[in-house]
Amino acid sequence: MTDRSAVQDALRAQRIETPSWGYGNSGTRFKVFAQPGVPRDPYEKLADAAQVHAATGAAPKVSLHIPWDAVEDYAALAAHARGLGLEIGAINANVFQDDDYKLGSVTNPDPRVRRKAVDHLLECVDIMDATGSTDLKLWFSDGTNYPGQDDTSARQDRLADALAEVYQRLGDDQRILLEYKLFEPAFYTMDVPDWGTAYAHCLRLGPKATVVVDTGHHAPGTNIEFIVAFLLREGKLGGFDFNSRFYADDDLMAGAADPFQLFRIMHEVVKNGGLAPETGVAFMLDQCHNIEAKIPAVIRSVMNVQEATAKALLVDTGALTAAQDAGDVLAANEVLMDAYNTDVRPLLAEVRAGAGLDPNPLAAYRATGWAEQTAAERVGGHQAGWGA
Amino acid sequence: MTDRSAVQDALRAQRIETPSWGYGNSGTRFKVFAQPGVPRDPYEKLADAAQVHAATGAAPKVSLHIPWDAVEDYAALAAHARGLGLEIGAINANVFQDDDYKLGSVTNPDPRVRRKAVDHLLECVDIMDATGSTDLKLWFSDGTNYPGQDDTSARQDRLADALAEVYQRLGDDQRILLEYKLFEPAFYTMDVPDWGTAYAHCLRLGPKATVVVDTGHHAPGTNIEFIVAFLLREGKLGGFDFNSRFYADDDLMAGAADPFQLFRIMHEVVKNGGLAPETGVAFMLDQCHNIEAKIPAVIRSVMNVQEATAKALLVDTGALTAAQDAGDVLAANEVLMDAYNTDVRPLLAEVRAGAGLDPNPLAAYRATGWAEQTAAERVGGHQAGWGA
Amino acid sequence: MTDRSAVQDALRAQRIETPSWGYGNSGTRFKVFAQPGVPRDPYEKLADAAQVHAATGAAPKVSLHIPWDAVEDYAALAAHARGLGLEIGAINANVFQDDDYKLGSVTNPDPRVRRKAVDHLLECVDIMDATGSTDLKLWFSDGTNYPGQDDTSARQDRLADALAEVYQRLGDDQRILLEYKLFEPAFYTMDVPDWGTAYAHCLRLGPKATVVVDTGHHAPGTNIEFIVAFLLREGKLGGFDFNSRFYADDDLMAGAADPFQLFRIMHEVVKNGGLAPETGVAFMLDQCHNIEAKIPAVIRSVMNVQEATAKALLVDTGALTAAQDAGDVLAANEVLMDAYNTDVRPLLAEVRAGAGLDPNPLAAYRATGWAEQTAAERVGGHQAGWGA
Amino acid sequence: MTDRSAVQDALRAQRIETPSWGYGNSGTRFKVFAQPGVPRDPYEKLADAAQVHAATGAAPKVSLHIPWDAVEDYAALAAHARGLGLEIGAINANVFQDDDYKLGSVTNPDPRVRRKAVDHLLECVDIMDATGSTDLKLWFSDGTNYPGQDDTSARQDRLADALAEVYQRLGDDQRILLEYKLFEPAFYTMDVPDWGTAYAHCLRLGPKATVVVDTGHHAPGTNIEFIVAFLLREGKLGGFDFNSRFYADDDLMAGAADPFQLFRIMHEVVKNGGLAPETGVAFMLDQCHNIEAKIPAVIRSVMNVQEATAKALLVDTGALTAAQDAGDVLAANEVLMDAYNTDVRPLLAEVRAGAGLDPNPLAAYRATGWAEQTAAERVGGHQAGWGA
Repeated sequence: MTDRSAVQDALRAQRIETPSWGYGNSGTRFKVFAQPGVPRDPYEKLADAAQVHAATGAAPKVSLHIPWDAVEDYAALAAHARGLGLEIGAINANVFQDDDYKLGSVTNPDPRVRRKAVDHLLECVDIMDATGSTDLKLWFSDGTNYPGQDDTSARQDRLADALAEVYQRLGDDQRILLEYKLFEPAFYTMDVPDWGTAYAHCLRLGPKATVVVDTGHHAPGTNIEFIVAFLLREGKLGGFDFNSRFYADDDLMAGAADPFQLFRIMHEVVKNGGLAPETGVAFMLDQCHNIEAKIPAVIRSVMNVQEATAKALLVDTGALTAAQDAGDVLAANEVLMDAYNTDVRPLLAEVRAGAGLDPNPLAAYRATGWAEQTAAERVGGHQAGWGA
Repeated sequence: MTDRSAVQDALRAQRIETPSWGYGNSGTRFKVFAQPGVPRDPYEKLADAAQVHAATGAAPKVSLHIPWDAVEDYAALAAHARGLGLEIGAINANVFQDDDYKLGSVTNPDPRVRRKAVDHLLECVDIMDATGSTDLKLWFSDGTNYPGQDDTSARQDRLADALAEVYQRLGDDQRILLEYKLFEPAFYTMDVPDWGTAYAHCLRLGPKATVVVDTGHHAPGTNIEFIVAFLLREGKLGGFDFNSRFYADDDLMAGAADPFQLFRIMHEVVKNGGLAPETGVAFMLDQCHNIEAKIPAVIRSVMNVQEATAKALLVDTGALTAAQDAGDVLAANEVLMDAYNTDVRPLLAEVRAGAGLDPNPLAAYRATGWAEQTAAERVGGHQAGWGA
Repeated sequence: MTDRSAVQDALRAQRIETPSWGYGNSGTRFKVFAQPGVPRDPYEKLADAAQVHAATGAAPKVSLHIPWDAVEDYAALAAHARGLGLEIGAINANVFQDDDYKLGSVTNPDPRVRRKAVDHLLECVDIMDATGSTDLKLWFSDGTNYPGQDDTSARQDRLADALAEVYQRLGDDQRILLEYKLFEPAFYTMDVPDWGTAYAHCLRLGPKATVVVDTGHHAPGTNIEFIVAFLLREGKLGGFDFNSRFYADDDLMAGAADPFQLFRIMHEVVKNGGLAPETGVAFMLDQCHNIEAKIPAVIRSVMNVQEATAKALLVDTGALTAAQDAGDVLAANEVLMDAYNTDVRPLLAEVRAGAGLDPNPLAAYRATGWAEQTAAERVGGHQAGWGA
Repeated sequence: MTDRSAVQDALRAQRIETPSWGYGNSGTRFKVFAQPGVPRDPYEKLADAAQVHAATGAAPKVSLHIPWDAVEDYAALAAHARGLGLEIGAINANVFQDDDYKLGSVTNPDPRVRRKAVDHLLECVDIMDATGSTDLKLWFSDGTNYPGQDDTSARQDRLADALAEVYQRLGDDQRILLEYKLFEPAFYTMDVPDWGTAYAHCLRLGPKATVVVDTGHHAPGTNIEFIVAFLLREGKLGGFDFNSRFYADDDLMAGAADPFQLFRIMHEVVKNGGLAPETGVAFMLDQCHNIEAKIPAVIRSVMNVQEATAKALLVDTGALTAAQDAGDVLAANEVLMDAYNTDVRPLLAEVRAGAGLDPNPLAAYRATGWAEQTAAERVGGHQAGWGA
């Protein structure tokens, strides 16, 4: 038996962080398709993010990507965000889009390049200081394409050194979120290919280093929810980069490719206490909207995460534990599936209405005319981002 | 027992086609790293290809990519190629790098876009007429990213219509090479995702339609050499797009990621007569040299294909068949591995020396000073290609 | 807008065939766990199947596996089935559990073994004649474990010969359902590894040869619903072997591992007319219940297929087509997801109640006391089947 | 430049441990094919292992599997082994072949079953004491098949408790080798699915707990040599279970499916000092010879590991490091490939001849007539093992 009002409270409390780069043009190596009205600078990205928050009431935080979102005055940017009802979330360090990083950034064989990369990471901590961000999200594209290209162990040493230097620089309320990824853009080795590698480094660094799980960064067949449960048990889950995929790092809308997987992940989060703010689990989106309208795609993704969370909250944990302890495989599975098979959209509509929001966030957004307005206004300019 | 001089003859006769785009900058969605001296137009690409042919004696054909290699006068381009000792190979139709193709080219729901795409394909046949090319290579990026986005069956109908129109336009000595790919850039469905789909369409089209196998376009675990054997048995193998991969369509140098697989593929080719020119199997490279020097990478790839072919030619087919017929699993495997474990580099050095070439093509290329010369000369300009 | 009573009619008409071997013990190579009350002969398997049909009203057909279900008098077995309200479904030829088949059955290098295998297939047609079965389901474990072990093309020739001989033997209302599988038990090549191979053979055989899609037999990342749509378009989809998997051929309960995939498959079936009896698409289960109670697991699987079908029937096809034609990616996806997110359990409860059944098939089964009764009665004996 | 005599010394020193179960019948869930002359008890398995050691001079250690190799008097068994020139290697605890373990062994929800399983592990340490074995190899089939079936975190707690109890029981020179596996026989979660999980548990246990890498236990696309390098860097690589695979845990002969991968693994071992006895890296085989003759298959596997090691030893590390430091991707790759492309069979023949062995171990084995002799003598009896 689950307590419906507790479920509603939990849903009301959940915060989903959206990425500034999700509002810009993105694509594959074959083509970046331009869309009308995409933001031309970080201020406009924040304005788009504010639309998502207005429609959902659940997305007050925005991740930045540096240097894509580089500005002169970060304190002013943060103040601008606050003015929109937003706050700055994770600072994502970008050490992959410079010709110097062809053979790696912090693990590059060339010490000059490594220095440059670490300096950028340190600069990102400065930006955290200026914006009030507490999370430094580190994803390294570093790796090799060919066997023999570089020394795998030496690269680990360089990585450890770089992380240690950055860790030292963190303020009291700041932390590292270390991301891992199986492959792409490197095709033979990645220097942080899996959660085990990220975990081992974080363990050595200390309590302010945690692992971030990007749901698109695993080998086929990997049981992501197991990793989530394991990291929560170890106190090392810093958060999620949500998106979805059928094949590789497809970066589709969260919950679109495998809603059952997203539910299973949220079930582990809920069961292991990960919804509680004090565990520090950040629920972030990290995705690309290559062919679909961007703001509605972000709204849909926020809704998908909410629906998966709602279903996870509806699991009858008493019945589940009883069936598990009795070794009744079918009954235990049925308890879980009961929650999954529930249509939670009415419940979420209720939560939204209770918060003074339109029960249908997509309709609310469409009614604003924002898409038409920005398409008309945002002409010219050049976006900083995603190969575009 | 294999006849060494017949092996040498076969190696001398093998032709490997190199791609014009392999000489230009390429990359991933994260970054295209620029290299010094890359060609600024199709003429310079041909000049680079001529270097590969000069060093290896095995690469007289060059595939073009339209519109990346669009010129005013294609007959002049072909004449220029001939002047360099080259000929124009497959014409690769590019219907993915235009904003119109966001939701597909020949399978786009919008008939206007489909018309535009088919017109481009027909234009490619015009270019074949002008250049003497006999092969129209068709790879479609068409597909969908989200369940429900479009009607899978309707897209097949549109694809069939487009192919039929192009097939009708082919001259007597011209053919279609239809490529398939599991995923990327589309992430939910691809309209030609596997060899079965390509095969079914080619069967319906007629004898001038054949399947091309890109070695990087399969699901994990797919046995590519089985497909090769099957298509050869059906008379439907048009050729290869060689490259190699560890994960997805990594487009690494052929033979670099899995030399044993390349050998097994060439074993099926050799065993089933696919080296004979009359079978029409085209041995093409289709790869990206994101971080390594491009011309030497193409040379190395040509050498890798040659080494795999040499090993395949060394298989003692009499002993193999005897062991297979006797059901002696270990003996049959050993016959194959004997050939694979042979160091064929001396044999290929001999073949090259016999043809008046440097036994070491990479050294020969380095000695030309071409890299330094083009780095100095080819300054400015803007490459047409690969998202760069 | 969907017509609710038409949806109910379609659900009432759907027939799901259950496998005799699903009622017996099964396992992995590591261990077959015995369960109390499992059937000791084909008659007891039919009795169990009758329980599933009694509870669901949707499972009147039972597939047999020969020789696991070998009896003296097949006409008597069929009559017994009819007495239980059942009929004999597909006859599954088993040419993998004899020492002679170590290197293959119909593709074995030894002609004596091939003859034996083909004779078994012909005997299965005799059994079809005797039982009134119309479907010969052919899955071949044939393949090789090591490169070089046998000649891939020669094995295709042998396969084609065997299939042709069996095809000739078919009666007017009989057909072949040819199954494919990526790997296991062979680990290097399978002789029918993918749908393309099965399709090509069926095409050559003629209209009475069709492809069967086992949902657990694909490479990671394969889009199964694409294959379904393609085969339906070609008129070559004979049916399904439903089960589910996270990794390989896990043979879990249908719909348990990926309910969204099952829905997408059923969406293609519904959209392309595959529910209509005249298309001949057989909805069969083929799964193993290694650790869970078997009869309830089959009931749950039937329910899962029904729920996926119900959701597929609820798709608002008018709205879907409109959004697709407009190129509105998000709207089209939303139409599909609306159906998927609907809780269809009340709808199915209504359908069952309307047919005089308990709305909850699992509760109905539990109420019979069959599990306790058979556990007490079925003691001793030795099951013919699955390595047990 | 590599020192040829140092290479020979290293090859002479390498020891490869063979598994007792590799000499017995094995198979898939579909069929275990019986072979003539397979051992009927542990003593006969040792006799077969002695043949492998006689032919190769490199396989003096034999892993046991308990209870498959259970005997009354383990000291006597060890003495018997010594009489054959062998010693007892790792003790493999088998907690998967008992009906009690249907829902797990050390992670079973039922405390009685957990107790039974831990007791078996402790008994295995007793056997280590009696036989002089230093290695307790732990592979747990534990996991779940269905979402919700059991509590993932609770199972980790149970696992940690069991490991801690066994760790306490270890003698001074004894250690745990903890194995991980992606899937099979459990199909939803495995309790130790990846190296990260095994590593985290070993870290907590202490210095006598290390990770063992089974080369067939990873998700598709996993870079195994990265894991090897990482674990060596952390001092946590206990050893290998060598075998090879194309798809899942195929358990083919080591080096048969992907000889280049085996070379890359051995390159990391050699480069990072893992050949030195003091690092304690055990080179074990763990494979099944389902269709090929078993003793020659083990000999071939030993040879394959030796050949991969020889190639790894031939890598010109000076040239490699220079090219790596210079960022010369192609040159660095070429150094590695030079070693791989070398035919090392003459070198190994020399090493064998120098040790008074036949340069061709397979011919040496065939000459003994052992296969014919055991086929005649070993009649009747029932093997304990692998589902047979």
